[in-house]
Amino acid sequence: MKVIVIGATGAVGKAVVEELGKRHDVVTVGARGGQYQVDFADIGSVRGLFAKVGKVDAVVVTAGVLHFAPLTSFTPEQFYVGLNSKLMGQVNVALVAQEYLNDGGSITLTSGILADEPIRQGASATMVNAAIEGFARGAAIELPRGIRINVVSPTVLQESMDAYGAFFIGFEPVTASRAALSYARSVDGAQTGQVYRAL
Amino acid sequence: MKVIVIGATGAVGKAVVEELGKRHDVVTVGARGGQYQVDFADIGSVRGLFAKVGKVDAVVVTAGVLHFAPLTSFTPEQFYVGLNSKLMGQVNVALVAQEYLNDGGSITLTSGILADEPIRQGASATMVNAAIEGFARGAAIELPRGIRINVVSPTVLQESMDAYGAFFIGFEPVTASRAALSYARSVDGAQTGQVYRAL
Ligand SMILES: NC(=O)c1ccc[n+]([C@@H]2O[C@H](COP(=O)([O-])OP(=O)(O)OC[C@H]3O[C@@H](n4cnc5c(N)ncnc54)[C@H](OP(=O)(O)O)[C@@H]3O)[C@@H](O)[C@H]2O)c1
Ligand SMILES: NC(=O)c1ccc[n+]([C@@H]2O[C@H](COP(=O)([O-])OP(=O)(O)OC[C@H]3O[C@@H](n4cnc5c(N)ncnc54)[C@H](OP(=O)(O)O)[C@@H]3O)[C@@H](O)[C@H]2O)c1
Repeated sequence: MKVIVIGATGAVGKAVVEELGKRHDVVTVGARGGQYQVDFADIGSVRGLFAKVGKVDAVVVTAGVLHFAPLTSFTPEQFYVGLNSKLMGQVNVALVAQEYLNDGGSITLTSGILADEPIRQGASATMVNAAIEGFARGAAIELPRGIRINVVSPTVLQESMDAYGAFFIGFEPVTASRAALSYARSVDGAQTGQVYRAL
Repeated sequence: MKVIVIGATGAVGKAVVEELGKRHDVVTVGARGGQYQVDFADIGSVRGLFAKVGKVDAVVVTAGVLHFAPLTSFTPEQFYVGLNSKLMGQVNVALVAQEYLNDGGSITLTSGILADEPIRQGASATMVNAAIEGFARGAAIELPRGIRINVVSPTVLQESMDAYGAFFIGFEPVTASRAALSYARSVDGAQTGQVYRAL
């Protein structure tokens, strides 16, 4: 299969590229790194990317920024950080991917454990991650030509504990390579409308 | 209790005003109708509303527009209709309400059955409704001074079947007055972070 991974140079994405690369031809995409560059918050940029890459069998997204802040000081603009990047970035990819996926192909998006398990300063994260899972649940019943869509919801990565550990006290981290198995289940499997929790 | 209902002149809101009015002083708010007017998509307008109404014991929102379209023709701009209105409108109200709610007060938002049960043309509806429930789940653990937040998720109203019935074949509608009981459970009850499904 030809698989495009958007966010391929990140903590999650690198492990996904390694796992999927065992069986598939992987096209790597980043904001600055990777074989191709895209700003997925801009659907025109996503269209330009797929016009260059062409038809694919699977699309994986492991990218998206969220703002964390105490609810009492959160602004609408800060909520729009996650809406414009992690949510609509992935929706943009799914919308364009419909046209470039071969029959029976798949889209795999990324949410995160905060969808289910709120933490302090995480109201936007829980909101955006829940929205991604809702989008996939809704899109799954409408995608044409047997195209599937799933979401992987990783807990905090072992590799990211230095950066985010203080937010995730008591959460058992997952290694990126184990989390990557959930992406493989989505890409190589046959289910649609699922949330694979990588815990 | 002094309760402000934003969306008070709508199909859901009118029944909520009637139910809550049995026990509470209700302040009615609409876009054009009601005792006060607001555009909840604009946090400045929401701030102006609360500056006029002052302290309250409960805030209820029964407003919000969504765009429905086939996934294959959906544009990002159409996804932003629901994000800017139903999602961020309600988030704006919650953010401002934190400052105007008395201790132990409550916020009650509105999602809808499409959060759980996708329909054709409903990808944005499922996404936005799931996001509202995620926001409340995240906000519930951070609200200060015992302030609570819940979501009511109504199925399609009996009163709205003429308008939306074709989208909801096989769904058993609920009367607005029965759906209003779920808002009463949230306002008069003691739970937080809940989704009350009005089925
Ligand atoms: N790390 C965790 O513990 C964890 C746990 C659960 C969920 N997640 C979620 O997984 C996703 C990836 O997290 P991560 O930790 O792997 O992030 P990361 O290490 O910061 O990597 C981000 C990746 O996204 C790319 N990217 C950045 N901006 C982009 C844009 N505008 N358009 C397209 N691609 C863009 C980056 O490319 P460049 O390298 O070229 O800048 C990079 O490949 C995030 O949505 C995060 O919320 C992460
Ligand atoms: N009806 C259903 O079957 C049903 C089922 C499940 C969920 N819902 C959800 O419940 C909510 C209300 O639905 P509805 O059918 O009652 O709608 P509706 O009859 O169209 O009423 C909408 C209400 O919101 C107000 N409003 C409109 N734009 C606003 C704005 N920018 N800022 C603040 N208020 C605004 C309207 O005021 P004016 O009258 O002054 O314009 C009116 O009070 C929606 O989010 C809908 O998705 C509805």
